[in-house]
Amino acid sequence: MARMARLDEVLTTLDEGLPAALDRLMAFLRIPSISTDPAYAGRVREAAGWLQGELAALGFQATVEDTPGHPMVVARSQPGAGRSLLFYGHYDVQPVDPLALWDRDPFDPAIEDTPAGPVIRGRGASDDKGQLMTFVEACRAWKTVHGALPAGLVLLFEGEEESGSPSLEGFLRDNAERLRASLALICDTGMYADGRPAITTQLRGLLGEEIVIRGADRDLHSGSFGGLAANPLQVLVNALAALKDAQGRVTLPGFYDGAPELSETLRADWEALGFNAGDFLSQVGLRHPIGEPGRSGLEMVWNRPTLEINGIAGGYAGEGFKTVLPAEARAKVSCRLVGTQDPEAIREALRAHVRSFLPTDCSVEFHPHGGSMASVMDISDPAFGAARQALSDEWGREAAFIGAGGSIPVAGDFKRLLGMDSLLVGFARDDDRIHSPNEKYDVESFAKGARSWARILAALG
Amino acid sequence: MARMARLDEVLTTLDEGLPAALDRLMAFLRIPSISTDPAYAGRVREAAGWLQGELAALGFQATVEDTPGHPMVVARSQPGAGRSLLFYGHYDVQPVDPLALWDRDPFDPAIEDTPAGPVIRGRGASDDKGQLMTFVEACRAWKTVHGALPAGLVLLFEGEEESGSPSLEGFLRDNAERLRASLALICDTGMYADGRPAITTQLRGLLGEEIVIRGADRDLHSGSFGGLAANPLQVLVNALAALKDAQGRVTLPGFYDGAPELSETLRADWEALGFNAGDFLSQVGLRHPIGEPGRSGLEMVWNRPTLEINGIAGGYAGEGFKTVLPAEARAKVSCRLVGTQDPEAIREALRAHVRSFLPTDCSVEFHPHGGSMASVMDISDPAFGAARQALSDEWGREAAFIGAGGSIPVAGDFKRLLGMDSLLVGFARDDDRIHSPNEKYDVESFAKGARSWARILAALG
Repeated sequence: MARMARLDEVLTTLDEGLPAALDRLMAFLRIPSISTDPAYAGRVREAAGWLQGELAALGFQATVEDTPGHPMVVARSQPGAGRSLLFYGHYDVQPVDPLALWDRDPFDPAIEDTPAGPVIRGRGASDDKGQLMTFVEACRAWKTVHGALPAGLVLLFEGEEESGSPSLEGFLRDNAERLRASLALICDTGMYADGRPAITTQLRGLLGEEIVIRGADRDLHSGSFGGLAANPLQVLVNALAALKDAQGRVTLPGFYDGAPELSETLRADWEALGFNAGDFLSQVGLRHPIGEPGRSGLEMVWNRPTLEINGIAGGYAGEGFKTVLPAEARAKVSCRLVGTQDPEAIREALRAHVRSFLPTDCSVEFHPHGGSMASVMDISDPAFGAARQALSDEWGREAAFIGAGGSIPVAGDFKRLLGMDSLLVGFARDDDRIHSPNEKYDVESFAKGARSWARILAALG
Repeated sequence: MARMARLDEVLTTLDEGLPAALDRLMAFLRIPSISTDPAYAGRVREAAGWLQGELAALGFQATVEDTPGHPMVVARSQPGAGRSLLFYGHYDVQPVDPLALWDRDPFDPAIEDTPAGPVIRGRGASDDKGQLMTFVEACRAWKTVHGALPAGLVLLFEGEEESGSPSLEGFLRDNAERLRASLALICDTGMYADGRPAITTQLRGLLGEEIVIRGADRDLHSGSFGGLAANPLQVLVNALAALKDAQGRVTLPGFYDGAPELSETLRADWEALGFNAGDFLSQVGLRHPIGEPGRSGLEMVWNRPTLEINGIAGGYAGEGFKTVLPAEARAKVSCRLVGTQDPEAIREALRAHVRSFLPTDCSVEFHPHGGSMASVMDISDPAFGAARQALSDEWGREAAFIGAGGSIPVAGDFKRLLGMDSLLVGFARDDDRIHSPNEKYDVESFAKGARSWARILAALG
């Protein structure tokens, strides 16, 4: 049978099976698999068991596998003809607080009509149960129509993504041989802002550091000691202000090492997205982008590093006034990293910088809070072009290669531990309210998402 | 009778009357006149009544006078031959928390023997009941021996000093004619560190300002907005760091206007005190004084202005990490002022400085927290020399003219509202634990304090 004809049958089957697929998603959404709350541990395991059952019924060799935390679900197909692929999703969900702001029981999902079309309302509808089920339904349709998948597949479902994935790294290390594939597929991202299908090809890394500067062994009265005693808040402020020059450029030696200029290909792609930084900022009450002269807004958030002060505490900050020189001052600082910037080298440069500001009577303590390199996919891999074409075919508009200002740690883990790039494709929308009350997933995202994966599997197979 | 003989009789009477004087102080200390706690309002008034009774028994025309808060006690002698004097003290006391750290009931005072001599232990023993009673006992002895005081006296006792004196200014304004004198006497300060008698002739002023910088209308995710959106914490830090140059000198235009060089007289006096800044700092775990090159430690804390950051709050400062760009950042900043530095002019310079750092998308709000000029007494008034001699005679060592790094607002109020300088003489010691558990007052401070006032009254009369 010709390749296109094979795919067309799969897509038709998906369309005809949509009501049943939505029923299955509803059943999955009814399981409150909140991973951060120990009271829900049994329900998290129930969700894992539900998934394992679905996958086993499709002919996968599917197991629920224990970890120090919540279990993993692993499912393996018969080895396929095409390249081997690892699909990743997570079956745990965010807590639902504040419950009073939900218009319905978060775990009694429903299809609701909205002016923008029907949506699936409920916790996890978008993040990530709805998204991962687009892939499962695509597999189901392939199996139903043709009895086999177009590629060799391993599916990996995590139950701790919303808890910071404490068991993931260990599990990947311990099971590297079983899980390694030529490419990972991850369905935990979104469309581009205007609803254009997108593949996220680069994500910024993250480096967090807490700085604690200490002076006297107690808070001092500024009348008695002011003018003689070093003030840790002043020391902190001096060090933090000197981290950037007048143009906002980070002054740490070597900070920009490994921060690459944008390729002409991506520059053209991103310009075509028509992003307007002022409009983007207006959603949060701002209007005037800062950032390096001559760089576009998308370049600033996707392809340039940042250094931001995330919090400062020291001295008296309550009502009224206390004229103290505080005994200590704290700051949390983080960097978003791009290209091959090295988080640990930057951490050391940051520490040396702060130390250089310490007067004799002050000491400093540093607490690292994570460090991960950026994830930059090799888009010359033909899989990226093929997937892009498949998405464009499904959605009737050109799919985009986009970046992400934040991090998806699992993509970095796959690269670091298993040597795989990730194809990040997702169908979430900016208004899905993930992590918030009244989370939803467009029925269109679900239906066309499954069709998209069916096409991508065909293209990669 | 010759002047010295008249004084000798008074001093002898004080010595013989010490046990009875201590009994009176004990009775006064048993009244828990905590002004900050509304539950003690009746006891505060009881203390006012106790004082009024004592003073009336000595022949003063004494009244308890209502204010919007706790009452004032005002007592007036027959007009004397010498200059008119206003004595000020306060009969309210600090709260006693944490009560568990007291070795005895704070309001069941006792004389305790210590290696350094007997002390009066109890809340208010030093601050300010013990101190103010030194003056009352001096008056009693003069009255007992000679039937009259050597000077015309008004005594003013406040019941809200530990609550920030909210009613004082209004009371002084409303009663200016009755209270104005040629000099105020204030007994609410201490001896110099090594137990040397001292007159505090200058106190630093105070200016407090809170700065609130706002950016976006919510905290922003640093992955989504970092690099594009202004960070109020960075703006705040930049503005605060630029308030001082590399030598720690304040950069605000006009900041040092009115900050005088120390007179040669006081410089010599202060040098004779043998102050060692490193030793002073070692009591709080520090060792290396900061401050302007070429200026002594005492000059820095008594005769130089400061600008200190007292508190900063913004963003996430709890356990762990949140990679936010905060919506707002706050700082509390205060200056200690000297000479004729103008707090309001400095406040305006500070605000202009901060505004100059604001990017287009940020706004700033300022909250003033008090502003008072320094109090600098005219030590060429012969009363200062006479009182110094009286103190030297009593203690057998040269009394010192000293400064204070902090403020005693009532001295500024007397100057501003009644046009009077203040002679600040007190007998508290650095180890009196005022405002802390186990407050004490040396019996020597009490006994020789009363004798000191008896001598000063003779000298000024």
